[in-house]
Amino acid sequence: MGRTLLYEGKAKQIFETDEAGVLLHRYKDEATAFNARKRGSWAGKGRANAAISAAIFAYLERRGIPTHFIEQVDEVTLKTRRLQMLPVEVVVRNVAAGSLSRLLGYEEGRPLRAPIVELCYKNDALGDPMLNWYHFRELGLTDEELGFCEGLGLRVNAALRPFFGERGLELVDFKIEVGRDAEGRMMLADEISPDTCRLWDKKTGERLDKDRFRRDLGGVEEAYEEVLRRVTGGEDS
Amino acid sequence: MGRTLLYEGKAKQIFETDEAGVLLHRYKDEATAFNARKRGSWAGKGRANAAISAAIFAYLERRGIPTHFIEQVDEVTLKTRRLQMLPVEVVVRNVAAGSLSRLLGYEEGRPLRAPIVELCYKNDALGDPMLNWYHFRELGLTDEELGFCEGLGLRVNAALRPFFGERGLELVDFKIEVGRDAEGRMMLADEISPDTCRLWDKKTGERLDKDRFRRDLGGVEEAYEEVLRRVTGGEDS
Ligand SMILES: Nc1ncnc2c1ncn2[C@@H]1O[C@H](COP(=O)(O)OP(=O)(O)O)[C@@H](O)[C@H]1O
Ligand SMILES: Nc1ncnc2c1ncn2[C@@H]1O[C@H](COP(=O)(O)OP(=O)(O)O)[C@@H](O)[C@H]1O
Ligand SMILES: [Mg+2]
Ligand SMILES: [Mg+2]
Repeated sequence: MGRTLLYEGKAKQIFETDEAGVLLHRYKDEATAFNARKRGSWAGKGRANAAISAAIFAYLERRGIPTHFIEQVDEVTLKTRRLQMLPVEVVVRNVAAGSLSRLLGYEEGRPLRAPIVELCYKNDALGDPMLNWYHFRELGLTDEELGFCEGLGLRVNAALRPFFGERGLELVDFKIEVGRDAEGRMMLADEISPDTCRLWDKKTGERLDKDRFRRDLGGVEEAYEEVLRRVTGGEDS
Repeated sequence: MGRTLLYEGKAKQIFETDEAGVLLHRYKDEATAFNARKRGSWAGKGRANAAISAAIFAYLERRGIPTHFIEQVDEVTLKTRRLQMLPVEVVVRNVAAGSLSRLLGYEEGRPLRAPIVELCYKNDALGDPMLNWYHFRELGLTDEELGFCEGLGLRVNAALRPFFGERGLELVDFKIEVGRDAEGRMMLADEISPDTCRLWDKKTGERLDKDRFRRDLGGVEEAYEEVLRRVTGGEDS
């Protein structure tokens, strides 16, 4: 089966094949941070993220959340539904960390009263700024799309917080993306992995996510392998 | 009548008197910009801003918008209802300028499809960041308060855009604040002046507002006097 590279992103290569309406997402070993100003890579990253994403998408589908996931086709590749992406990054937070700590002056680790949803404009040139609904309407998004994004973020959070919790991981925050299929149905897309989630060990507080790379904490490969082990080893509640 | 200084802000001194529930706002000649990193002052600024604010509050009251304004007591002083302020700056925009131009990559002067409302957290230490409703709920604000702020911003805009338009001024954007009186009624507070609005001459495009001070464009005194002349000289439609 021939593959044509459609798009090379920072973390994945996206291929089309002769199967219409379907894409292959090939997870790379490269890592970037701070809008690609920091770069690195390690063996096994793509494999870990592909397997973690596949397991999580399958779990969310079983919980009734529509996703682009079709199946895993090899160690680093997932088959997905081809979507028209919304230019939105949906961030959901349970605990203050990263940019939210700076924004509100909260120390990292401070629990939030209720999940906070942020909508960022997926635009590297502008630095993916956080916007509100009025801004997104100006950019052409509809209230239906914005409401779907926020609702999906909260539904994914409600499903994944206990999923990770049973595996000894606190889901501090995460980022998802949303797209529409040819019939106009919106669904969860992109990936869910230690690249896109903050995951802290519930007992030790240890960070098991991309912050090890961003902040040069060491042990980044081991952290991703540990998340993989816990996500694929645990029972599916 | 004795006055006790309650609070000295960047642009006004706030006094209480022996009259309960009432404050005096004394408009100063000092100007600050960029979170008070830039400072200046000019004779007549306080007088112009007090008279402009008084005229606009009176106009908005006649249009059914509740404000803190009671009366002007001398050239630089307004008597107002004493409120419990919400820690929110409500920004409304009709045309891209300033931080919105940077945020969206829009050239200054580009008209917006519809007014954009932004809610910022009034907190100098954090740099008055723009937040969304989830953040403000975390900070203890209610949906009633947030809805009132956005609705008030849009109502003030709908009243003031034609008010300034008839006086040859484009209302590019403005900032307002909101407080609650002892009975819990929310209303418009603080000031509305060339310090808190962007006003561009409709014919020449000339800026007649605090951007002349922020950007060292010269003629700042003349600009404030010109706005005063147009606001208090025009008929009250
Ligand atoms: N199902 C899908 N259909 C089409 N595009 C997708 C789908 N899922 C994710 N994408 C897009 O593919 C790209 C994923 O590659 P990635 O390396 O993560 O890119 P980026 O550098 O933008 O983060 C992103 O632009 C993402 O929006
Ligand atoms: N009616 C009111 N009652 C109580 N406080 C008010 C009222 N109107 C405005 N204020 C507050 O008074 C202060 C006005 O002074 P100003 O010099 O503008 O302060 P700042 O330096 O915070 O901008 C602000 O903190 C504002 O929130
Ligand atoms: Mg990506
Ligand atoms: Mg002020």
